[in-house]
Amino acid sequence: MARPLFRRKLDLSKGKIELVHGSGGKASAQLFEEVFLPSFRNPALERGDDSADLSLGGRIVVATDGHVVSPLFFPGGDIGYLSVHGTINDVACGGAIPHAITVGFIIEEGFPLADLNRIAASMGAAAREANVAIVAGDTKVVERGNCDGVFITTTGIGTVPDSIENPPRADRPEPGDKILISGPIGEHGVTILAAREDLPLATPSKSDTAPLHRMAQSILHAAPGTKTLRDPTRGGLATAINEICRSSGTGAQLVESAIPIKPPVASACEVLGVDPLYLANEGKLIAIVPANEADAALDAMRAGPHGEGATEIGEIIRDPHGFVQIETALGGKRMVDWLVGDPLPRIC
Amino acid sequence: MARPLFRRKLDLSKGKIELVHGSGGKASAQLFEEVFLPSFRNPALERGDDSADLSLGGRIVVATDGHVVSPLFFPGGDIGYLSVHGTINDVACGGAIPHAITVGFIIEEGFPLADLNRIAASMGAAAREANVAIVAGDTKVVERGNCDGVFITTTGIGTVPDSIENPPRADRPEPGDKILISGPIGEHGVTILAAREDLPLATPSKSDTAPLHRMAQSILHAAPGTKTLRDPTRGGLATAINEICRSSGTGAQLVESAIPIKPPVASACEVLGVDPLYLANEGKLIAIVPANEADAALDAMRAGPHGEGATEIGEIIRDPHGFVQIETALGGKRMVDWLVGDPLPRIC
Repeated sequence: MARPLFRRKLDLSKGKIELVHGSGGKASAQLFEEVFLPSFRNPALERGDDSADLSLGGRIVVATDGHVVSPLFFPGGDIGYLSVHGTINDVACGGAIPHAITVGFIIEEGFPLADLNRIAASMGAAAREANVAIVAGDTKVVERGNCDGVFITTTGIGTVPDSIENPPRADRPEPGDKILISGPIGEHGVTILAAREDLPLATPSKSDTAPLHRMAQSILHAAPGTKTLRDPTRGGLATAINEICRSSGTGAQLVESAIPIKPPVASACEVLGVDPLYLANEGKLIAIVPANEADAALDAMRAGPHGEGATEIGEIIRDPHGFVQIETALGGKRMVDWLVGDPLPRIC
Repeated sequence: MARPLFRRKLDLSKGKIELVHGSGGKASAQLFEEVFLPSFRNPALERGDDSADLSLGGRIVVATDGHVVSPLFFPGGDIGYLSVHGTINDVACGGAIPHAITVGFIIEEGFPLADLNRIAASMGAAAREANVAIVAGDTKVVERGNCDGVFITTTGIGTVPDSIENPPRADRPEPGDKILISGPIGEHGVTILAAREDLPLATPSKSDTAPLHRMAQSILHAAPGTKTLRDPTRGGLATAINEICRSSGTGAQLVESAIPIKPPVASACEVLGVDPLYLANEGKLIAIVPANEADAALDAMRAGPHGEGATEIGEIIRDPHGFVQIETALGGKRMVDWLVGDPLPRIC
């Protein structure tokens, strides 16, 4: 980069975001160079244009996610990790390998620079670990009281490898397909709930936020007939399965006793009166696969990180109404509706 | 799409956004289907996955812009038009033809559905007019008081045509290159300022918000040596030229009397005490071109819509300090610095 714009560097321990950091002028450039660039450094970003160019061929997958989680920092992660993982995972569920991320920050005047720097460092770390580059971005600052700290919108861009003929889609499941989950549910939701309400959990829980594109590719190679991949974030497992059933015009039959839930999450749900089926996950994959590929898909999930607890939890059934049912531990059946109210706004 | 999720449709005249519209559950799906899908309709969006796939080959350009403009509706446009044009124009300045846009909404609880629907309709109209598809998106809702109405972050994705060998970049200008502007400056900035402060302008002004990718392609074909294209938004012409000089290690010499400003903008600037060089534009292009291609580039700009007022306003000079100077109407010279304070937060 060229000569420094200011003699005095930003005070990253005590400094605050000012409106001028969003002006597009010299202070914006300083914020970019002293906070974002050191964390995200890559050639596309360093060039100083308003766009980034990428050499990508073939089938491109894009996904966008806004992140408004409260609190910004929580056990197991922060809004920075979440904003990279959430978008990578949506790209991964499209069958693609993510290559690049763009980021739009909306920041409240007065926000501590130290917190922003910590969030940028988390994003950089998450991006490097996932082998994606943060290639373009934008920062706006709004007056005090007009947003809550920082909101981060990320867009992920990836390519589908040539070896994947039929990328997973929500409308492909058919009766008889098996429903798999990569591990225990509800950890992110319970963690945020506990952090927000300052609830002392008997056993502390932490967010499962993690990048899942490597697991997704392993599944697609081990089980090439895979119909759908989905990360059950907001709205939880229950809502994700309902969405898939609606898109594909099928129903689903889940087995309650087969759905993995860690004891601290289960007991927190009992105390708080929330249903773990509706709690957000940020590091879990649902895979809908043909019955004869279920074992191969499970082996692929279990072989890598983040998938050791993978298991089969039900199957797709014929149902023109698209209902999702669950067989309860007592042998009865109940309907599992979409999330209707919102037990927990700003979970991600 | 499948069966409706609710018996009762959203009330698009009197309804308000509720937290549950951001829950990722049934109400989120309804908002998507009754507000966004009708305005944005295209196959990628209709499929119901968390990502969109695009078949794009070769050199991809991406750009992201957050939009926090206040007020949301103003003469000549609204946040919806702005959020599509702003991002298209950044992609265009990378030498690419934009194909797709993703959109992340962050909405305040209680926001009128009628306003959201109007904004979605503006985005759909702007996208269709520019021949881009809004292919993926996300909606979050935050509690009343935690954001100001609606913030929209868009990401644009385009491809550089094979015929363009050397896409424009901020670091390419060299001494002797000419600086062109596609028309009169300051209209967007003055319009927002007047709308926000409820100032009665003698002659009303309106925003110049417009898509510029067709003009950008015309310039690049007429003047293949074009070094840089830039849309001078936040921070205005002065900041954009400073950024380009800094990236390329050159200086610039502008001619004040050559810079086109419409009389209502000039008189408003005089009354308000603001410098039009720092006012935002949302429908203007700066082109830095070799001297022998300046006429061809100007002809290309003037031949299409939005470029009738194109003119040469200065040249790139040798200056290792990267300073931008302007020759005043009286024959003197003054320095033109970056925007340092922020005369007008939330201009876009």
